[in-house]
Parts: sequence; C-alpha cells; structure tokens
Amino acid sequence: MASTIIDSAIFQGIFSSDAMRQVWSDENRTQKYLDIERALAVVQGRLGLIPQEAADEIVSHCHLDQIDLVKLRAQTERIGYPILGVVSQLNALCRDQLGEYCHWGATTQDITDTATVLQIREALTLVDDELAAIATAMARLAREHRLTPVIGRSNLQQAIPVTFGYKIAGLLSAVLRHRERIAQLRERVLVGEFAGAAGTLASLESGAMETQAGLCAELGLAQPVIAWHTIRDNIAEVGAVLGLIGGTLGKLSMDVKLMMQTEVGEVQEPYYHGRGSSSTMPQKRNPISSAYVHGAISVLRQHAAALMDAMVADHERSTGPWQIEWIVLPEAFCLLAGALKQSRVIVEGLEVDADAMMRNIEMTGGLVMSEAVMMGLGPFIGREYAHDLVYDLCRESLAKKAPLLDLLAAHPEINRHVDRAALARMLDPANYLGQSGVMVDRVLTRMG
Amino acid sequence: MASTIIDSAIFQGIFSSDAMRQVWSDENRTQKYLDIERALAVVQGRLGLIPQEAADEIVSHCHLDQIDLVKLRAQTERIGYPILGVVSQLNALCRDQLGEYCHWGATTQDITDTATVLQIREALTLVDDELAAIATAMARLAREHRLTPVIGRSNLQQAIPVTFGYKIAGLLSAVLRHRERIAQLRERVLVGEFAGAAGTLASLESGAMETQAGLCAELGLAQPVIAWHTIRDNIAEVGAVLGLIGGTLGKLSMDVKLMMQTEVGEVQEPYYHGRGSSSTMPQKRNPISSAYVHGAISVLRQHAAALMDAMVADHERSTGPWQIEWIVLPEAFCLLAGALKQSRVIVEGLEVDADAMMRNIEMTGGLVMSEAVMMGLGPFIGREYAHDLVYDLCRESLAKKAPLLDLLAAHPEINRHVDRAALARMLDPANYLGQSGVMVDRVLTRMG
Amino acid sequence: MASTIIDSAIFQGIFSSDAMRQVWSDENRTQKYLDIERALAVVQGRLGLIPQEAADEIVSHCHLDQIDLVKLRAQTERIGYPILGVVSQLNALCRDQLGEYCHWGATTQDITDTATVLQIREALTLVDDELAAIATAMARLAREHRLTPVIGRSNLQQAIPVTFGYKIAGLLSAVLRHRERIAQLRERVLVGEFAGAAGTLASLESGAMETQAGLCAELGLAQPVIAWHTIRDNIAEVGAVLGLIGGTLGKLSMDVKLMMQTEVGEVQEPYYHGRGSSSTMPQKRNPISSAYVHGAISVLRQHAAALMDAMVADHERSTGPWQIEWIVLPEAFCLLAGALKQSRVIVEGLEVDADAMMRNIEMTGGLVMSEAVMMGLGPFIGREYAHDLVYDLCRESLAKKAPLLDLLAAHPEINRHVDRAALARMLDPANYLGQSGVMVDRVLTRMG
Amino acid sequence: MASTIIDSAIFQGIFSSDAMRQVWSDENRTQKYLDIERALAVVQGRLGLIPQEAADEIVSHCHLDQIDLVKLRAQTERIGYPILGVVSQLNALCRDQLGEYCHWGATTQDITDTATVLQIREALTLVDDELAAIATAMARLAREHRLTPVIGRSNLQQAIPVTFGYKIAGLLSAVLRHRERIAQLRERVLVGEFAGAAGTLASLESGAMETQAGLCAELGLAQPVIAWHTIRDNIAEVGAVLGLIGGTLGKLSMDVKLMMQTEVGEVQEPYYHGRGSSSTMPQKRNPISSAYVHGAISVLRQHAAALMDAMVADHERSTGPWQIEWIVLPEAFCLLAGALKQSRVIVEGLEVDADAMMRNIEMTGGLVMSEAVMMGLGPFIGREYAHDLVYDLCRESLAKKAPLLDLLAAHPEINRHVDRAALARMLDPANYLGQSGVMVDRVLTRMG
Repeated sequence: MASTIIDSAIFQGIFSSDAMRQVWSDENRTQKYLDIERALAVVQGRLGLIPQEAADEIVSHCHLDQIDLVKLRAQTERIGYPILGVVSQLNALCRDQLGEYCHWGATTQDITDTATVLQIREALTLVDDELAAIATAMARLAREHRLTPVIGRSNLQQAIPVTFGYKIAGLLSAVLRHRERIAQLRERVLVGEFAGAAGTLASLESGAMETQAGLCAELGLAQPVIAWHTIRDNIAEVGAVLGLIGGTLGKLSMDVKLMMQTEVGEVQEPYYHGRGSSSTMPQKRNPISSAYVHGAISVLRQHAAALMDAMVADHERSTGPWQIEWIVLPEAFCLLAGALKQSRVIVEGLEVDADAMMRNIEMTGGLVMSEAVMMGLGPFIGREYAHDLVYDLCRESLAKKAPLLDLLAAHPEINRHVDRAALARMLDPANYLGQSGVMVDRVLTRMG
Repeated sequence: MASTIIDSAIFQGIFSSDAMRQVWSDENRTQKYLDIERALAVVQGRLGLIPQEAADEIVSHCHLDQIDLVKLRAQTERIGYPILGVVSQLNALCRDQLGEYCHWGATTQDITDTATVLQIREALTLVDDELAAIATAMARLAREHRLTPVIGRSNLQQAIPVTFGYKIAGLLSAVLRHRERIAQLRERVLVGEFAGAAGTLASLESGAMETQAGLCAELGLAQPVIAWHTIRDNIAEVGAVLGLIGGTLGKLSMDVKLMMQTEVGEVQEPYYHGRGSSSTMPQKRNPISSAYVHGAISVLRQHAAALMDAMVADHERSTGPWQIEWIVLPEAFCLLAGALKQSRVIVEGLEVDADAMMRNIEMTGGLVMSEAVMMGLGPFIGREYAHDLVYDLCRESLAKKAPLLDLLAAHPEINRHVDRAALARMLDPANYLGQSGVMVDRVLTRMG
Repeated sequence: MASTIIDSAIFQGIFSSDAMRQVWSDENRTQKYLDIERALAVVQGRLGLIPQEAADEIVSHCHLDQIDLVKLRAQTERIGYPILGVVSQLNALCRDQLGEYCHWGATTQDITDTATVLQIREALTLVDDELAAIATAMARLAREHRLTPVIGRSNLQQAIPVTFGYKIAGLLSAVLRHRERIAQLRERVLVGEFAGAAGTLASLESGAMETQAGLCAELGLAQPVIAWHTIRDNIAEVGAVLGLIGGTLGKLSMDVKLMMQTEVGEVQEPYYHGRGSSSTMPQKRNPISSAYVHGAISVLRQHAAALMDAMVADHERSTGPWQIEWIVLPEAFCLLAGALKQSRVIVEGLEVDADAMMRNIEMTGGLVMSEAVMMGLGPFIGREYAHDLVYDLCRESLAKKAPLLDLLAAHPEINRHVDRAALARMLDPANYLGQSGVMVDRVLTRMG
Repeated sequence: MASTIIDSAIFQGIFSSDAMRQVWSDENRTQKYLDIERALAVVQGRLGLIPQEAADEIVSHCHLDQIDLVKLRAQTERIGYPILGVVSQLNALCRDQLGEYCHWGATTQDITDTATVLQIREALTLVDDELAAIATAMARLAREHRLTPVIGRSNLQQAIPVTFGYKIAGLLSAVLRHRERIAQLRERVLVGEFAGAAGTLASLESGAMETQAGLCAELGLAQPVIAWHTIRDNIAEVGAVLGLIGGTLGKLSMDVKLMMQTEVGEVQEPYYHGRGSSSTMPQKRNPISSAYVHGAISVLRQHAAALMDAMVADHERSTGPWQIEWIVLPEAFCLLAGALKQSRVIVEGLEVDADAMMRNIEMTGGLVMSEAVMMGLGPFIGREYAHDLVYDLCRESLAKKAPLLDLLAAHPEINRHVDRAALARMLDPANYLGQSGVMVDRVLTRMG
C-alpha cells in the first residue's frame, strides 16, 4: 500500500521512472550500506587495522538477502537510524564474533551519507543520460526545422517570425549547460564520508586517514577535505541543479502546451491509441506529458528550497536538518525522473505542423511582417517616415480587415518605389528570419 | 519497493502514520471513486434519470475487490487519468450494458475532486484528533507545572523566570486556534464536485442541480455554489492550515531540543529501551522525535507554497496545476501525521526536571533576578537609582564571580533599607513569576 | 535611492500601491510605536500606576515630528532594535525626568508586535477594500455576460461551451471566500501584545492584566489570551491568507493572458494611450497588468512559506525567526497591493469581445458541440449508438475539414429522425450552456 | 519613504549593505541602460551601421544626469517597461534627429537583460569579496584554534571533543567551494543579450552578429550562443548559488547562537558599546548578528525557488515570469549582502573562550571521554569487554554523580592494568582530538 503518488501502484510510471525509483528504494539503500561496510572491512583488513579473517567473514555477509528488513524497521524505529540495525544483524551473521570488527571506527552518519552519495551518483547518471537523450532529440528537431517559420510571440502576442528550430535550439542550449553543471557538481558531491562520531576520526587510533582514503578509493569516490556531517552545501547544490533542470523542462512543457491549444495547433504531443484523448470529444488531444511535467517541476523547486534549509545544521551532527534531506532528496530525483521521462516522450515524438505554423503567421494579414516592411521601405522613403506610414496602414488593415499587402501596394508613396511583387517579398516571413539559422548552428556546435 | 521515505518499509512508521497512509493509499482512493459512482447511481436512480435497474446493478459492483488494479495502472498511463479506467471496468462488470448508466453526466475531475475531498475529510479528522490529544497532554503539563519556575530565554540568553506551564500554555493556545482553523476550513472545503466537462453540467439535460444536490447529500458533503475545477482556493487553504500546524509543532520541537541539550537538561523526550541512545555514549539521550518533527515540517511549508502555485489554473480544467495537488496533498498530510505522532509522543511522555530548571535559574548567581531586585528596591531608593545601582552590582558580580545577594547585602545604601532575608526574597524566582499562572488559566479556560 | 522594486522610484506604482507602501513606511511604523507608548501612558495614568503628570507629559511628545530618524537609525544599528531608541528620545523630550515612566513594564517586542498588528489592521482593510471593488466589478461582468457563450477549455483544448459570466463567477466565488477568510483572520490576529521581557508581565507588580486589557482596548485590539512573542501562528496565517488571495489573482491573470493571445482574442486588458503597445507592432496589445500580477504572486507564495518558517521560534523571544517577519510581512502586503491594483484595473476595464468568443466556438466546425449532438440524438437512435456514430462523423469532419452539420444532415440514420434545422439547434452553443446561468446566480446571491 | 526593510531608512544598514543597495538602485540600473545604449552606438558607428555622427551625438548624452527620472516613472507606468522611456528621452536630447539611430536593432529586453547582467557582475564581485574576507577570518580562527578543544555535539548532546579550529575549518571548506561556484557561474551568466524583438536579430539587415559580438566585447561580457530572453537557467542559477551561500551563513549563525547561550558561553559575537545588550539585564549579550543572518537567509532560499519559477517562461518573451526576476534578484542580493556583512562581523570579531570550552567538556565528569577510555582499555582487557565495562561505569557515574576517573581507577579489573595517571591521560580531551588538526591543515591548503 503506497500513499505517495511516486510510489503509487497506479501512478508510479507517470510521475517517476522505474530506474530512479530503484535507486532510492529500501533495497538499494540498504545494499549500499552493505557495500560500504564491505569496502570498509576490505580496506581495514588490507591496512592491518582489523584481522583479515574478520574482513573476509564480514565481506561474505554483505548481501541484502541476508538482512531481515522487517526486523530492521523495528530496530530503526527504536534507535532512530537504520545503520546500527544493519550492523548488529551483520554482526550476528558472522562467526566467532568476527563481526565485532564490522563498522570499525565508523559512525551512523558516515555510512548513511556515503550511501546517499552512491545513490546520488547513480541518480545523476540517470538524469544525465536522459538529458543526453533529450539533447539528441532536440538537436534533431533544431536541425530539421532550422528554417521552418513559426511566429515568435512576445507577451503571448504574435510579434515577428522565428523558426521552430530556433525555438528548440534555445532549450537545447540550456540542456547542454545543465550537463555542464552536472559535471561540475559531480566533482564536489561525489565525495565519501568517513569521520566518526564528531568528524575527527578519533575513533581510529591509527590508520585513520589511510582508511578514509582507502574507503573512498574502493568506492570510487573522492576523499573529503574535512568531515561534512553538518556542512551540506554539496547536497543542497544537488537540489539546486535538479531544480534548474526542472525549470528548463517547465519551459519546454509551457511552450508545447501553448502550441497545442486548439486555436494554435502548431505541435502535438506524440499520440498512441487513446492517449490524452476524450471519450466524447474526438477533436481533443490533451498535452498530457506537458501537464505532468508542469506538476512535477513545480514541486521540485520547493524541494530545492527545503534542501537549502537543511544546510542550517547545528554543531557536529544536526538535530532535524539532516532529516529534511532524507525526505526530499529521493522525491526530488524521482519527480525529476518523471519529468525527464515525459519530456523525452515529448521531444522524441513531437508532431510538428509546419503548415499550421505558417497559417498562424498569416492570420493577421501581414501585420506581423510590419517591422520587416518598415525596414524594407526605409531606403526608399526614409526609415522614420516608413515607420509612420506602415504603422498607419497596419491600423487601417486592422480596422478594415484588409490584407496589408493590398494597402501597401495601393499606396502612391509606396508603389512609386516598389511594386507588389517586391512588397510581397518583404511580407514573406521566410525573408525575415534573421539569424535564426545561424543561432541554431551555434548551439549545435556545442553538442560536440 | 518504495522509494519515498513516507512509503519506505523501513521509515514509514517514523515519518507518517498507518492511519494517514491508509487514507491516501491507492486502495482508499480507488474505493472513494467507487463510493461516488455508487452514490451517483443511487441518486440518479431515485430521481428517475437512469433506470433503477441500472442503478442497482452499478451499486452491486462498487467494491474495490472487483477492480483490477494492474489493469487500472495501464489504463491510467494510457489515458492520463484513472477514472475512465475505473468506469470502463465497472461497466464491464455490469450485466446487460446497464453499466452504460454509470458515471452519468460526470467528468473525470468530478470524481477525482470529490474523492480528494472525501480523503481530506478523513485526513482532517485524523489531524484534529491528534491535535485534541496533544492539547489534552499539553493542558495536563500546563496545569501540573503552572508554577514550576524555568528560566525564560530571550535571544537564547537567560532573561527572567517564567513557569514551565506558561511555556506549554503558549503552545496550547496555538493548538486550540488550529482546531478552530480546521473547523472553519471544513465549512469551505468539504464540498462535492459534480459539474461535467466544463463545469456547467450541460451533460445532464434535466435534473442537473438536483443530481448535484443529491450526490453531495448522499456523501455528506456541502453542495458547491459553482464548479471549482479550476477554482482551488479551498484546496490550497488545506495546505496552508497544515503548514501552520506544522509551524507550531516546529516551535515545540525547537524548545524541546534546546531544553534537552547536555548543558541545559531541563526536559527529556520519553525514553524506552534503546531509543535515541548511543552505543558508546551512555550520557546521550537524543531528541529523536524532535528531530523528525523539524525535518517533516520544513518540507511541509514548502508544500503549502506549492499548493498556492496550483491555484494558478488555466481556464475550465487546468493543464498541470492540478497535478501539483496530486503530488503534494498526500505527502503534506502524511508528513504532518508523522510530525503529529512524534509531537504527541513528546508531550505525552515528556520528562520534566524541575530541579534542573531551578539549577539553571541559579547558575548566574542571581543575575537573572536583577530586574526583580531593581523593582523591589525602587520604593526605597528610587527606581532609577535602584536600576543604576543594581546594574553596577550585577557587573561586579559577573566580574568577581560573586553571588549578587552577597554584594547587595553588603552595600550600605541597600542594607540600610532591606535586610538580607528581604533581599533573598527579592532574588527568589518563585516571587517573580508575574502572571504566568494567570495566563495558564486563561488558556486552559479555552479548552472548553 | 531605493534598491527594491517595491520602493523603486520608477516601479513603485506598478508593483505596489501608495496607500500600502505608506502603511509599511518608516514613518507609519514609528508613529505606531508612539501611538502605543501614548496609549500605555494614558492607561497607566488612569490606573494610577504612573503619575498622571507623567502620562500627560509623555502623551504630549508622542508625535513623529519630535523623533530624530537619523539618530534612530544609529541607535537601532547599535542596539539591534528601534524601540529603545524611540523611548530614549521620548524620555529626553519629557521635562523633569517624567519620561522615566514611559514604556512602563513593557519590552521591546511588546511595542514592535503591537505596532505590526496595527499595521496589519490597516493593511487588511486596504486588501479587503480592493477585494470588495474587484468583487463588484466581477459581479457586473458575471451579470452582464451571464449567457455570453465562450468555449470552455480543458487542458487548453476546446471542450464545450460555457458562458463568460460563468468563468467570472467562479473567480468571484473565491474572492468572496477570501473576504470571509479575512474576517475570520481578523478575529485571531488583531490582538495586542503587552507582556514584558519573557511574557509574564512580572515587570508590573500590580495592575498588570488591567494595563494589558486597557492598552488593548485603547488601541481597539483584542486582549491576548497569553503572550505570543514566540507563538506566531496568527502572523503566519496572515501570510497564508495573502498567498491564497494571490493564487486567485494568478488564476485571473492566467485566463486573461490566455484569452488575449493573438490567436484567441476574446478579451483585452483596458487600453489607454500607449499602454502595453509596441512601437513597431500595432497589432500588439500586451497583457501588462496580467504579467505584473503573475510576477508578484509567484513571490508572494514563497513569502507565505517563509512566514511559516518564522513560527519555529526559540523559547520566549526568538533569535532570528522574528526577523523573517520584519523582512517578509511588508513585502507580502506591498506585492499583494500591487497585484490587487493591477487585477482591479483588469476587471474594471476588461474589454470583452463576444463576437470573437463565438468565432472561436465555431472554428472547429461544430466539433465542440459533439457532446450535445450525441445527447440530442440519444432519444432517437440510442445513446451508445449515437455516441459512436457522432464520434465517427467528427473524425470524418476533422479529416475532410467538412462542417459537422453537413455530415450529420447527410447521414441516413440521422436525417430520418431529425432534420437539418433540428440538428442546427443541437449544434447551437446557446442551447448547450447547461447550468451556467444558474451557477452565476448562485454566486451573485452570495454578494449580499 | 521606504516600505521594505531593505530600503528602510532605519534598517537598511542592518539588512543590506550600501554598496549592494547602490548596485540595484534606480540610478545604477538606469546608468547601465545608458552604458549599453552608448556601447551599442559606439559599436554600430564603428561597423558603419549607423552614421558616426549619430554615434557621437548619442554617446555625448548617455549620462544619468540628463535623464528625467520623474518623467521616466510616468513613461514606465504607461508602457510597462522603462527602456522606451529612456530611449525617447535620449532621442529628444540629440540634435538633428540623430537620436533616431539610438537603440538601433535592439529590443527592450536586450537592454534590460544586459543591464541586469552588468549589475550581477558588480554584485557577484561584492559577494565574492565578502566571502574572501570571511574566508581569511575563518582561516585565522582555524589556525589559531587548530587544537583548542571544544566538545563536539551530536543531536545537541555532548559527544566527543573536537577542536574549535576544526569546527571553523568545516565552514571554511564550504566558503571556498562557494567561491569556486561563483567562478563557474560567472562563465555562464556574464553574457550579453542583444537579439531583437523575438531573439533572431531580424531587426538588423546586416552586421547583426558583428554588432552582438562587438557590443558584448565593449561591455566585457561573453557573447551568447543564442538569445536567452526566455531561457533563464543562468539567472535562476544565480539565485541558487546565493541560496547555497546563505545556507552556509545560516549554519555559522546557528552554531554561534548555540555557543553563545548562557548555559554554554563558549563564544561571543564582538561587542561594542551597547550592542546586543539589555538595559535591565547586564548578563545578556544577544547574538544580534546571528539573528539577522538567520532571518535573511530564510527568505533567500525562498527567493531561489521563485527564480526557478521564473524559468517557466512562455515563447520568445514571457508574460509574467520575467517580472519575478525584477522583484527577486535585487532583494536576494541585498539580503545576502546583509547576511555576509553580519557574518563578517561575527567571524572577524568573534570572542572565543577556550576556558569555557574546556569547562563544558568537563561538566559531565568525563563521560564524554568514555569512547576514548573504551579504546584505551581495549588492548588490555579486550575491546568488547572494555566497552561493556566502561559503559556500566558511565551509568554508575551518571547515577552517583561521581567522576568517571574515580570509578575507573577504583575498579580492580582496570587498575591492575593501568594506573590513575594513565587513566587520566585517556580522559584528557587533548589526547582524543583525532584528525582535527590534520583536517584543519587540509582545508587551509585549499586557501591557496
């Protein structure tokens, strides 16, 4: 029985992904505890800090199927943390009290934090892979629609034409930066924790730093410069980067929703039987994926703030702030995984209706090309006069619902300089796309 | 396999409660859908809008065990919402196509929203019951320690004495207001939704408002004044009230944490074997429950903000904002349930050490009573002169680490008016508790 | 030189209102301090707790123009709070050291909190007045467009017709509930604070509760049941209610923005020369007010969360949480005032284009009326068969871009039962508005 | 008359800094507009896109004192943005209509965004400089107190000793990472914007990319890879980094507040006459700066979330989301500047009481050294047995309030192996500081 939407038997596939849920599952987290205890035993055996026999015995029991999870729940509720429960179960599994050497010199939070970092490593890889796939799909769309005109909109008003490739390339530029952010973040956050009760490793009379270095190496993590039990900027930065990625997905979903409106109809989320359709209204195609993205990333940014709150930790081991991370980190990753999945569905399968885009450009009878006409007429009648004249004709066009081309071609001060064909060329959106293509190319170059 | 801390097999008992998780479970939510479809059939049969035979047949199948949840997940992922899946399963269960009359005139969101309201009703009752229990325990503490002196602290500095009962009565006053808020909230939020595709009930040619009224009555909900598919102030208000309650629990946990400090030691969270203790440090008693409360309510207030975001809904059925509620509402209630449970553990079992409280009052050698002495000497030597004199003696006391009483009693301008015994009375915290008891009584009166 | 947008000499009129900024100005806040010190002197003089002569002298100096604000800044930076500075200035103004009786028994936070409550009272009145004006304008729009058809949209897809009055009435219902919330909030929050250093009023040997009662009465506030220096649910509730109001304004602005889109064009924000227009694009009319509302209320909901954070206060006088309120409360009210002002501009001057609304309904060639036709044909050919037949014809209509009416009228299984005129009636949106008008009336009834 | 605490004549010096407020002032923002228009004219003159004479004339008027700010407010309220007002004023200042060449090819948001980036550049420098100063002061403290014992606290319980230098070094490690984050952020965010109405630079028939490159170079900014009018990840990242820095300052202030408690008394915020003191309670020294930091950074993290919300921008120029940035960015920087200032006051003037630290370590009669004793006895009597024995003696010590040393020395199974002197050495905190010094050194190495 799940009570959250993330774990819901009905909704889990919509709001998260199986792979990400697995990363944050009880099973994976507990296995990470065991991996760390195992690595610690290996390293301390190698360093001669514990008997090799003990190390071997401990290693032989670090398997999830040897742990009683029901018992672990009871232990956790009693003690407040699961680590001692795991260690005491491990201990009991070992022969000849060799299990006493398990967890040697470690404190609960060492194991918990390092496990979290291992989970973050797996989770960041899932996020980065999805971003890579989304970037690939966006690059394809940007290339394909490098010069497909679509109206640019400012304040939800039609302004001047851009290209659909340009629209997508802007998003792509952000996705590429997010991958850069993840790379920089990894350098900081993929760091082990092994520091003892108050972070000083006083618990190991000898070999303390060697154990720390060895453990981190064994787990493929960097060694911390100092204990970070209550120095949580790296963890909060994870939330911040997830929130930033969510923001970009939110922008994608916003534009898709708006372009899918009945009155706009320029793109469609990919369709498969029954998806986002209505039983009574065959004309409807709901932006289902976009709606899910919107919902997930709205919560995600709040989680980013909560993780900053968790930084306000007291002394050497905090009293509450740490627990914020326990709640928020798994959810933030799971929700982002859902949003990435839905976003990937969108960009990989997006149906682009170039005709509808052109139809919308033309719906104002040429008004959206007024800036182009002003500029085109400038050399003949002066820029300023051209501006005033065209502006007036635009208002006339609006008032009379007459095509701007007709009014322009009929005006004596204009048609003495340029003929209707030339005016039509000025009004052709394809001739007023500016640097759309160049900008698309600049972004694609960054794809590497 | 759960990935959230709320549904975690290990942590669920810590961060939520079984009763609250049940309210938001897939099973309960789906049963609520069935309850509503059932009530709709009953009412529409009664009104003659659908054949009584159909109503009876539908009613006979509105049981959770007849629903295939695996199939429902697939249907939900395809359509985007679970309701049509439930309805089509119901339909298939009915003989002679009588199931066609199921869901008559309703839209997906009617059922979903009304189900949510029914869940909110159950959840608010759980919250209110916990608040009642906490109020009772607080009232007991306040009464018991009505005149137990404890140092009042301002800016984390010892200021002047108050009583422990007074400290608790302040919290109790907020708990009582929360119950008032819940009562007022119920009036607004316990309202059904039945309005059809765009809220106008055009889907029912006749009996529309009668069906709406009847359905709400059948479910024990108020009838809406107008459709609220995208008018979400009431739902957001639920989040706001939960966030406010969380704030009070946060204050409770903050004070308990601070009073449990090794250097303070005035209260202890209730102890049972192994709880919050350390395997190596027998002197430690961790404020485990307080830490959990701190973590949960930090997230809760961000959820309140997210639910306000969900109010920015588009047109008649929103595209994303609604989904924010799906994510946040269950979590907000579950986390609050956990925080309430832990808070109740605290207040019902709190160990109060009145001796330690007195010891802390006395640790400054009387300095915290300086205000009392200034006031006591005023009638004899003038308030202002008393202030300056006592202030100087306090600084002398600090510098020489000499008890203030000795310095006061030795001062010629003082001992000519009041003897040592009188000075000792002025320095007795029991004589400077002000209106502590009166204020406790004023709050207790509100308990009703 | 202002650095915030709220106080900016350029933007202050856009993001706030003069009246609200005045409420939270240094001048008004400081005057409130003086009002409270004055009331305290009056009451304590009357009760005989201080000499009447002192009371009179103090009262005679409680005028803002007697306070040196430059000096007050220096005092505040030194002490950390402004109250002692005000009191010492007052004291110095009084003859014969009668100023010593100023602030008798009070603590800094008593004056600060009570001043804040007095500001909240003024601010809530401004908010409520704006809500009343908005409600009036909405009621007019709802009445006027009670039966003006506009397409209802679900998931940003055209669904079935509703009326514009119905759209507005939904918003109005929320505005009316907000006024109810404010009324309930006032009962809780308009409460004075007078409690002394740790809240117990030990600072007054006699007449403590009488002074508290008298002071509150003098200021027109309720008497607190207990000191609330660190019990801040009421203040946080103010933020919550503001955030909820913001959410409704956000919904209003969202719909206006969407309806103002070039492709939709159903409403326009009021126009006056140059407002929201473009120098080169005469076709543009930007939803300027709606954009401002969107921005302000997005920040507002985060402020609501911050005020919940401020509830986690330590002991009897908090160390930091209180300062959150100092930052957030003024901004929250100022931003809401801006959002209310812009919203009022929108609803009082909204240009409604009923023709455009009808044009949009018709743009799908009747598809949005398919539900109506299904229902209309049900009695003749069976509901289910009608559904399937109409659904197929709709898809044909979409594919062939043929009006649905033509296809319906041409179909033998249909035209044998109903003629083209009857079908046209079924396709007339005016005949499928459901309970739109009834719901409008139900909301208007609540206007009182 | 200011209404925000940031601009308050009373509080501005507490909650922000003059330098930061200047960055976000109306004056500096408007001057930035002029700087950009000036740079644009210079570059376009050089490229031959506008007459050199026009460029020179425009340049000669780009001074703030030529702009009428009162008029600018009116223009801004009418149009919705200040840029056209500035341009039209500039235009009017130029002779012979040469001002027509001002703002050539630019759009309102180009100037606004680039101005914001220039302000961000100045603001980040202020932040980074403060961080550098704080890092220097922390390094000094860490070095000085490299081996000053202080009790390590876990869950607000005394655990085992650490050093005060170690405590500070942990914070320092985060400060150094923040400087790294700022450096990485600068690479992304210090990018100009010049892209025209919809971002494609169609407004310039020739020399578009050259103008963009030249303008950015002239302003010392990087050239954008593509227009970012509605791609706001970089701006939101600014907020995220500020929020993260705030989190670290929050942790600093939390520890200082806790260590300043009357019952702890290990450090004091720097004192100068009257600061944070009480008129009646000479024993009080309030953690004033810490309280301000707490308040400011609580709001800051909410601003970080709001800036992520601003990323959800629509199409090519957004309708509301952009305005979120207008409100939040200045405040976030101003509040952080205040928090940095207060934090710098704390770390540069912190009074450290090493004696009090030792006294607190000793207050439990040796119990906090139990782990050390367990480890010390291990070689003699076996680790496990040593654990159990010491644990029992600790409980006895607690129960009898007897020093642990006495009990240890009296125990036959212990005193047969180690004498009282050796036991005393085991109980000496100076011998159980673990890697505190090593970790301090590791962090200091990072200072470069």
